[in-house]
Amino acid sequence: MDQINSISFIGSGNVATHLAIAVKKVGYDVKEIYSLNQENTIELAQKVSCKAIRSIEQMDQSVDLFLVAVPDETIEKVIKKFPFVNGIVAHTSGITPMEVLNRERRFGVFYPLQTFSKQRELDISAVPFCLEASSEDVLIHLKELAMKLSESVFEIDSDERKYLHLTAVLVNNYSNYLFKAAYDILAAKNIDHSILMPLIEETISKIKDITPHEAQTGPASRNDIKTIEKHLMLLNEYPQYKDLYKIFADQLIKKYNE
Amino acid sequence: MDQINSISFIGSGNVATHLAIAVKKVGYDVKEIYSLNQENTIELAQKVSCKAIRSIEQMDQSVDLFLVAVPDETIEKVIKKFPFVNGIVAHTSGITPMEVLNRERRFGVFYPLQTFSKQRELDISAVPFCLEASSEDVLIHLKELAMKLSESVFEIDSDERKYLHLTAVLVNNYSNYLFKAAYDILAAKNIDHSILMPLIEETISKIKDITPHEAQTGPASRNDIKTIEKHLMLLNEYPQYKDLYKIFADQLIKKYNE
Repeated sequence: MDQINSISFIGSGNVATHLAIAVKKVGYDVKEIYSLNQENTIELAQKVSCKAIRSIEQMDQSVDLFLVAVPDETIEKVIKKFPFVNGIVAHTSGITPMEVLNRERRFGVFYPLQTFSKQRELDISAVPFCLEASSEDVLIHLKELAMKLSESVFEIDSDERKYLHLTAVLVNNYSNYLFKAAYDILAAKNIDHSILMPLIEETISKIKDITPHEAQTGPASRNDIKTIEKHLMLLNEYPQYKDLYKIFADQLIKKYNE
Repeated sequence: MDQINSISFIGSGNVATHLAIAVKKVGYDVKEIYSLNQENTIELAQKVSCKAIRSIEQMDQSVDLFLVAVPDETIEKVIKKFPFVNGIVAHTSGITPMEVLNRERRFGVFYPLQTFSKQRELDISAVPFCLEASSEDVLIHLKELAMKLSESVFEIDSDERKYLHLTAVLVNNYSNYLFKAAYDILAAKNIDHSILMPLIEETISKIKDITPHEAQTGPASRNDIKTIEKHLMLLNEYPQYKDLYKIFADQLIKKYNE
């Protein structure tokens, strides 16, 4: 093939949904969707007007690219059942090495470094795509696709990618959980959480300007034990959030005061 | 007095610096600065072209408002040495009750819910000011001042305020520390942390649209133990970050999968 024209998806979750919509939008022919969850498969197939497939063995083997966007623990299982194809087979995982796909002829990784939720649209053009490929030829094809979707395309090997995935969990999943904790605590006091939004926004704006190390403020970094104790008292009703609070406070006290 | 015209500061740290500059900018007469740190006192006094005072007893007692922006553990100590004045005395703390100022005639709280670093300018007009006052008269004066600085002014009592302060620590101080962890880990692998910025921005954008509960993604919320184990392996070089990672993973697994 000269370039990728047709794409099928294995998976129908958050990542598959966003990518299928995005590639269709820029003109690719989305052929088929298969996933273990039949209901989600049908839903996504309807969204991008393509065929929903009931069993992986029945997938059309002539398409140019198969994007495997399934949970990490499922990638190997899925691939074992997958017929040998001429097209490129690429997974979208941050943590799984490219080599799990090495039964295929041409394979690679097409990892979008972003948090995707089905219920929310997002601007794919700002998403960094991290690519890896079994050959220069495959890399060229994946790059061409990625550059149609996004302004931000990187070659990242499997080792680097797993560190990116780890840090993505820290900055997104775990920050978001801190936001959840804060919202829960304010809701119990009938305080509207929107009052925190300027602070949350400044938290991000700051680190565009100065390092997180320089941006650090608050009681723990200045070793204000009395304030920390008062906060811990308030958290008596929330034993889990109290455990979280403690470990942060301890680490910040050590890093900034010893 | 009809309204606040002159303001003196007790304190010369991040909050005092930002507030002194801000009130001067909107036309108030910044009279004097006193703080324990003589060097910072002089630096701030120069910035806002006012007098640096060496001892609190020597402060001009005729000013309309004294803003006490010192570390929480110092507020009571400072106040004990402070002469009785006719003006309003207000502290800027999130966690300290208003009543610690009750030796004064007229007192209150002027708490800006934001993270301030001296080395970074910020738009004060978006900062939520949380006010509390010993009388209706004091409240009117503090409100007038706050509304000249910001579009976002709230009456918040001492009990609500301490919960706001606690949640501010969670969403700012502890998120920022997660960013620091991520940056440290990427630096050790020579990966430019700017690749994380679109993800960090989307983390915030998401919660303007959907709740943090709905926004949650990642291995822990989908109980992907294998990925978590791989991440923990990568964190063997970072025992503290590993402890942090574990506690988040455990809590997310429980909240989303039990």
